[in-house]
Amino acid sequence: MSIRLIDRYLDGFVSEKELSEMNGKALLALKTVLDGSGKGSDFLGWRALPDVPDKNEFARILSAAERIRKQCDVLVVIGIGGSYLGARAAIEYCQGLNRNALVKDGPQILFAGKDLSAATVCETLRLIEGKDVCLNVISKSGTTTEPAVAFRIFKEWMEEKYGDGAAERIYVTTDKARGKLKELSDTMGYETFVVPDDVGGRFSVLSPVGLLPIACAGIDVNEMLEGAREAKAKFSQATSVFENDCLKYAAIRNVLLGKGKSTEILASYEPALGSTAEWWKQLYGESEGKGKNGIFPASVTFTTDLHSLGQFIQDGTPRHFETVIDLLDPGYRIEVPYDEKNSDGLNFIALKQLHDVNRTAFAATAMAHTDGGVPNIVLEVSGRSAHDFGMLVYFFELACAVSGYILGVNPFDQPGVEAYKKNMFALLGKPGAEFDALRASLSEKMK
Amino acid sequence: MSIRLIDRYLDGFVSEKELSEMNGKALLALKTVLDGSGKGSDFLGWRALPDVPDKNEFARILSAAERIRKQCDVLVVIGIGGSYLGARAAIEYCQGLNRNALVKDGPQILFAGKDLSAATVCETLRLIEGKDVCLNVISKSGTTTEPAVAFRIFKEWMEEKYGDGAAERIYVTTDKARGKLKELSDTMGYETFVVPDDVGGRFSVLSPVGLLPIACAGIDVNEMLEGAREAKAKFSQATSVFENDCLKYAAIRNVLLGKGKSTEILASYEPALGSTAEWWKQLYGESEGKGKNGIFPASVTFTTDLHSLGQFIQDGTPRHFETVIDLLDPGYRIEVPYDEKNSDGLNFIALKQLHDVNRTAFAATAMAHTDGGVPNIVLEVSGRSAHDFGMLVYFFELACAVSGYILGVNPFDQPGVEAYKKNMFALLGKPGAEFDALRASLSEKMK
Repeated sequence: MSIRLIDRYLDGFVSEKELSEMNGKALLALKTVLDGSGKGSDFLGWRALPDVPDKNEFARILSAAERIRKQCDVLVVIGIGGSYLGARAAIEYCQGLNRNALVKDGPQILFAGKDLSAATVCETLRLIEGKDVCLNVISKSGTTTEPAVAFRIFKEWMEEKYGDGAAERIYVTTDKARGKLKELSDTMGYETFVVPDDVGGRFSVLSPVGLLPIACAGIDVNEMLEGAREAKAKFSQATSVFENDCLKYAAIRNVLLGKGKSTEILASYEPALGSTAEWWKQLYGESEGKGKNGIFPASVTFTTDLHSLGQFIQDGTPRHFETVIDLLDPGYRIEVPYDEKNSDGLNFIALKQLHDVNRTAFAATAMAHTDGGVPNIVLEVSGRSAHDFGMLVYFFELACAVSGYILGVNPFDQPGVEAYKKNMFALLGKPGAEFDALRASLSEKMK
Repeated sequence: MSIRLIDRYLDGFVSEKELSEMNGKALLALKTVLDGSGKGSDFLGWRALPDVPDKNEFARILSAAERIRKQCDVLVVIGIGGSYLGARAAIEYCQGLNRNALVKDGPQILFAGKDLSAATVCETLRLIEGKDVCLNVISKSGTTTEPAVAFRIFKEWMEEKYGDGAAERIYVTTDKARGKLKELSDTMGYETFVVPDDVGGRFSVLSPVGLLPIACAGIDVNEMLEGAREAKAKFSQATSVFENDCLKYAAIRNVLLGKGKSTEILASYEPALGSTAEWWKQLYGESEGKGKNGIFPASVTFTTDLHSLGQFIQDGTPRHFETVIDLLDPGYRIEVPYDEKNSDGLNFIALKQLHDVNRTAFAATAMAHTDGGVPNIVLEVSGRSAHDFGMLVYFFELACAVSGYILGVNPFDQPGVEAYKKNMFALLGKPGAEFDALRASLSEKMK
C-alpha cells in the first residue's frame, strides 16, 4: 500500500531545473511545519493525530461507536465544513456512494446541519420517521448557525420520541471545557468527545471529529490511523523534492501557479472519491486562498465529466492543471460481456476487466490533455481500504501545510470567512452594538 | 413565475457604459441565433423543442412513461453527458436529492453508463436485486463506450430475468434511422424514441432524451415545456441588454471575461440544485471552452461551501465571479424552534422560517463577496416547479448560444472531446489502421 507521484505527464510543463530551484523553499517549508516555527503554529496538532494522542478518549470512541451501531437504524451526524467533510469522504471512499441503500450491519448515516435548506431538514425528518436514531453533533463552539439550528430541530424530535432516554442517544463532539454546547452536554448528560484546540476544522478528520462517525460506519479506524502513520513516517523526511513525493506535489503546484496556472482540478475515475475531492477543496482552498493569491480548487469525476468539462479542460482558457488520483484497485471486479452479435462494435474490449478499461481511459486522457497544454500530476493510490484513505489524508494535509508556507501564507487561518457571517448576524438581528452598526450600513446598501 | 436578473451586486464591476458597448454585439448574436445564420447552425433544433415539434412522438412518450411507472420498481437510465445530465437535473430540481428513498408512487430512478467504474455497475446490480426493472438506453450512435458497456451488462441481466419479455421493458432513445442501436432495437422490438439530428447532447433535455425519464419520475413535462415556451417568448425579444435579462446575462459574462474573470461559479443555496449546476457546467463549458478561450464553469452549494470554498472566493486569486440562483420558494416550510434555555444563543432567529434565514445568508454573502472584489450576478427564480425548471433551462440555453456568438466561437461543436477518445480506442486495441498508427506513437510515449 502506497502513494506515488507519477511525473510522466509533466514533461514540458515543469522542468528539473524549476523543481531544483523550488527544493530549498520546500525543505524550509517542511522544516517550518515540523519544528512549528511558522505562522499559525498554534494549529499544528494535526501532525500528531495519527499517533493517537489521547488513548483513553480513543477507547471511548470505539466503545461509543459499538454502542451506537447497536442502538440505532440511523445515525444523524450534525456538522458543517471540517466537521463533516472528512467523515463523509472516508465513508464514501471506503464504502461507496450507495452505502446507505446497501448496508446490512450497522446504521445508515445521514449528514445534517451542513446547510440552511428547509428541504434538507424536512426530507431528513421524513427519512428517519419510525426509525431508531442517534445523533452526533460536532461543533467546537456550539453556536455555528447551521449545526445549531439542525440540533434544535433534531433534539426536539429525539426528546419527543425518547423522553429522558434521548440523552443516551446524543453524542457531542465539542470543546473540551468551554462553550455553550459543552455546558449543555454536561447539564443533560450527553457523552462528549473533544475537538482539539490546536487542530483546525479542515485538518480534523483524524481527530474525534472524524473518528466517531467513521467508526460508526463500521470502518476500521485503527487501520486508517496506521495508514496515516505510514504516510507521516514516509513523507516527513527532509530529503528533497526528488525523493519525497509530498514535497514534490507542494513544489510542483507552486511552480505551476507561478506560471499562471491558478486552477487545480482534482480528478478521479471513481464516483466514490467525489467527497474526498470536496474535503480536499476545503483543505487547499481555505489554506491557500488568501491575500488575493492561491490556486482555485475544482474537481471532476471522470469519465463522466469528460463528457461535460472535457472540452474546456482540453481546449479552454489555459489557466488550469489537473491532479489525477489513479486508483489501482477499485474494490470490484466485473468483465465487459462478450456479445455474439457485436451490435455495438465493442467486442474489442469484451472480456476485459472494466477497471482496466477505466484505467486505459485515464492514460488516454492524460496524454490528450497534456497534448492540449494541460499539465497532469498523477497520484497513484493502491485501493479503497481505510489504510489507503488514512495515507491519502496525511499526504494531502502535510503537502498543504508545506505548499502554504512555500506560497508565503498562513495555511492555518481563514480570516475571509468571517465577512459574510458578520453581515448575516447583522441582517438577522443578532443583539450587540457591533451588529447594530453594521446592520444600519447594510440596510443602506440594500435600498 | 419568472426569472429575473438582479444587478445590484455588480456595481463597480460592470458599468452601464460597458453594457451599452456590448449591446450591439448581444443583439447581433441573438439575431444570429434566431435566423440561424451563424456557425453550427445545423444544431439549432433546441430552439423549437418547447413547441413540441413531433406531437405523435410526444404522445408516445407520455404513454410509455405511464406504462413504465406501472411495469417496474426501478428504472435504470443508461446515458452519459447530455444524455443524462438534463434528466437528473430536472428530477432533483423538482423532487429533491432524497427522491429515491422517499418516493411512494412510481419507480426509483438510477443512472448508469455514465462512467467506467466497476463500483457503479456492481452496486447498481445489487440495488436492483429482486426488483422489477425497466431500462431506458439513451445514445445517438449506440457506440459510445460508457453507455454501450452498461447496456451489455444490464441487457444480459434483463434477458436472464425476463427472457423474451425483456424486450417489453427496454426503451431506447437513439437516432431516428441509422446506427447500431437503432438496428438492434428494430431487430429486438424495443420501443424507440428519437434523438433529433439538429440538437446537440447538451441542448437535449427538452427532447425525448430528457422527456422520457423526467416523465417516468412523475414530473409534468407539459408544464415543463410550458415554462420553456414562456422563457422563449420572453427572452427572444430583440430589445436590449437593459430589457432582456437573457441578453444581459450573456453580455455581463463577456464583459467580466474581458476583465480577466475567467472562472464563473454557479451558486445556489439548495442542495437539490446541485445537478442543475452540473448540467449548466456542460452547457457552458462545452459551448465556450475552445480555442484557448472561454469561462471555466465551477459550482458551489451554499451555505455548505461557504465553510470550504468561502475563504478562497472571498480572498483568493481574483479571477472569478459568481452567478447565484436565488430561489424564492424551496417547496418546504419549517421554523427555527424556540429554545427556552437559549443554550446556543440563537433565539434571535427563533420562529423565523428557515428559508428566510437561508435567503438572509445569501444577501449577506453577496455583500461580503462583492466587498472582497467578486462580482455577483443574481438570478431570481420563483420555485421548484416543472414550469420553473423549464424556464431556467431555456433561459440558460438561449443565453449560452448568445454568449458563445458574442465570444466568437461556434457554441454548438465540441472538437476537443475527440482527442482522449481516439487515444483510448487506440490503447484498447480498436481495429483500424488509424488506431494502429496512433497506438504505436502512444506506446512510444508511455515507455
